[in-house]
Order: sequence, then C-alpha cells, then structure tokens
Amino acid sequence: MNNNTQTTRLYHSMLSPFCRKVRLVLAEKKIEVELVEERYWESPPDLKRRNPAGKLPVLRYRGNMLAESQAIIEYLDETVPNPSLMPQTPMERHEVRRLCAWFDDKFNAEVTRPIMEERVWKKIMRSGYPDSRVVKDGLRAIKEHIDYLTSLLEARRWLAGNTLSLADFTAAAHFSCLDYISDVDWDRSEMVRDWYATIKSRPAFRPVLADQVPGIHPSPHYAELDFG
Amino acid sequence: MNNNTQTTRLYHSMLSPFCRKVRLVLAEKKIEVELVEERYWESPPDLKRRNPAGKLPVLRYRGNMLAESQAIIEYLDETVPNPSLMPQTPMERHEVRRLCAWFDDKFNAEVTRPIMEERVWKKIMRSGYPDSRVVKDGLRAIKEHIDYLTSLLEARRWLAGNTLSLADFTAAAHFSCLDYISDVDWDRSEMVRDWYATIKSRPAFRPVLADQVPGIHPSPHYAELDFG
Repeated sequence: MNNNTQTTRLYHSMLSPFCRKVRLVLAEKKIEVELVEERYWESPPDLKRRNPAGKLPVLRYRGNMLAESQAIIEYLDETVPNPSLMPQTPMERHEVRRLCAWFDDKFNAEVTRPIMEERVWKKIMRSGYPDSRVVKDGLRAIKEHIDYLTSLLEARRWLAGNTLSLADFTAAAHFSCLDYISDVDWDRSEMVRDWYATIKSRPAFRPVLADQVPGIHPSPHYAELDFG
Repeated sequence: MNNNTQTTRLYHSMLSPFCRKVRLVLAEKKIEVELVEERYWESPPDLKRRNPAGKLPVLRYRGNMLAESQAIIEYLDETVPNPSLMPQTPMERHEVRRLCAWFDDKFNAEVTRPIMEERVWKKIMRSGYPDSRVVKDGLRAIKEHIDYLTSLLEARRWLAGNTLSLADFTAAAHFSCLDYISDVDWDRSEMVRDWYATIKSRPAFRPVLADQVPGIHPSPHYAELDFG
C-alpha cells in the first residue's frame, strides 16, 4: 500500500447533511481528511466503483472505502474511541441511533430534502424553479421538529442524553444545511437555539462554517458563533 | 412494574419490511413476543405516544418502548448476544450496517416501497388503483439489486461476510414482503435464490411465513421451503 492510498479522503457534497455528519465526526475526533467535492448528480465515473450505491459520502480510510453515513460514523466511533460519541449502555445507544434515524429519515423527508431540493439543488442542477408550496410545507414541518427537540432538551443536556453523541452531530448536520440558506426559525425555541449555538462553537464545526457553495450565498449569521 | 408491563410486545404491520426485520431478529434470538397488528395509516391514538415519530415498528421490551428498526435490532444484538448477529471487527460491522442501509434506504426506495405501495397498500388503504409503470420500474430495479447481491455472494457465504448477520435478516425482510405477492424473479440468480431458501428455512422465519393478510393472498410458493 503506497502513501497515497493511506491518505484519509472524503468524497462529499458541501450541502449534503449525510456528508456533513461524517465531516463533523471526523473533525471531532481530530482525524485529518482531504475533501473531494463531487457533483454526484452528474454520475462521476468513479463514484459507482467507490460505492456501488452511487451515493455520497464515501470515505477512503486506512485503505478501505466506507459508505453510508451512519455506518461510517459508527465505524469511526468504534475505531477512534477518543472522544467517544456513543454512551455506555445499550439503552442509551438505542436512543442515539433512534435519533440519528429520526433526522436521517423523518426530518430529512419532511424538512431537509424538500427545502434543499427546492431552494438549492434545483438551482445548482439547473433543473427548474422552486415550488413555494413545497418550501412552505417544509418550513411548517420544521416547527414541529423544533418543538419535539425542545421537549427532549428540557430533560437532557444533549439530544440523546447527558453526553454529546452522534445524534447531536447528525441533527446539527441537517440544521447547518438549512441554516446556510437561513431556513431555521431559531426564535421558536431558546433551548434548541442554545443547543445549536453550543455545538456550532466547537472547533469541529469550523470547516463546515467556512463552506462557500458557488452561486449559493450563506445567510449573514451562518458562520457567526453568537447568532443572537 | 406489573407483569403486564413486562410482556415483550411488538406493534407492527404484517407486510412492512421494517417490522419484519425486527420480528425475524426477535425469533432468531428466541425472544417470545406478543404481536399487535396496527393500521398505522389510520393514526391509531396511542401510536404517537409510543413512538413520537408515529411509525412502526415499536417494541415494548423490558419496560421500555423502542423505535426505529435498525436501532431496535442493534439493541437486541447487544443485549441478547446469543446468537450474535454482528461480526467481531469494526470493518465487518461496517459492512453489516452498510448493507442494512442499502436495503432500508436504496432497495426500499427503488423496489419495496413503490411495488408494495402500488400492489398492496393502495388496496388495503382503498386509496386508488395500481400504477403499472411504477410497478414495472420497481421490477426492473430489483434485477440490478439481485445482480449486485450475486456479486457479493460469489465471494461470501452470507451477504455481509461468512457469518449470518443483521444484514441477511434485513435483506430477507424486504424480499419476503415482495415474495408474498410473488414479485421476485428468483430465476435470475441461483445464488440469491439459494441464499433466500437457506434463510427462509430457519425456524425464525416460520411465523413470518404463516402471515395471512386479509384481502391479499400470498403467492403459492410463499411458504414453501423448497421453492424449486
């Protein structure tokens, strides 16, 4: 195996929440990574070779190609246990995984995917104009999600319990994509806003806050740590 | 906690692949369970209380309510380790989780959900007639998936490696829903057919093979162990 094969490299797309969760976990664990931005919708020739599912993110790590964001971050947590982002007991770990699935399935289907599709991807892919009804439905749905998170945070320091976990980074990955285009109603819940301000101020968040997607300007508060 | 609270109970829907994967893992681990069939599309009043996501399956287990199928089966594997359905090394576990996500995300989106929606759920929910183009697209997609599984099984005894794992039960859960309505082209790959025949013949599969959904008849070979 030559030196080049050993470089940790993430094939990603800047405003994909699934890619962002992997970037955040890599950074939290202080794993240096080379980022390669991929225009996956143009089916780059090597994408299917790296990941037969034809999806991003793909992580080249220690000579292996890893795919599927949740599988990747669980692998990283098992192999680079410091800092640990999974709690000790099976019941607590269930809660972390339940909330990761909450964001990657439910929140993504009701909020991230429709809003990003209409307001970002259609523009980048030049595939049409945003459908304002779809955006409106997404913005309505996000309110219910913020209320649910508020109910969780009333009894917990972090989303899945009293320790920072993969669930916080998964949730923050979705929120940060929406925050880039200013589509989070942070005034709805002080608790959720404080939770996001806290995780956003971690050094692991810095690279994500420096993202500049060509043609899509970040909201003025996107990279501000004190966004009051 | 009274005795009733202690009963293991799965709130499920018979032809949901996500419910089936939990049933199969429970049975493989010889955990006795009381099944409660839920018509989730009618939003039963207690569903959101048991699982704020409003989805099935929900498992009441040791006094807790567990949700999200992958989080549930990982929890079961951690707490009832015999037989273990996760391999030893982090890289092997990554492969199991990658393939679980393959089926629950990609296979579900391209095959299970569209075909079951058109051929089963529209009938059960009385929400319209099947769109044959959608069914045809699903049946075309399943061929590519069978070819991919064939390529995996050429080098492995089970889907994720040489030991039976959560990935096999996840895949079998999806295939068994489609097989109920006879929508799997088993002639396409002897290897995939043999893999399914082997897993289907396990005692854990028996309860699933006994399913009878009112108004939807199982295919003649659905419950046959030697379906040659």
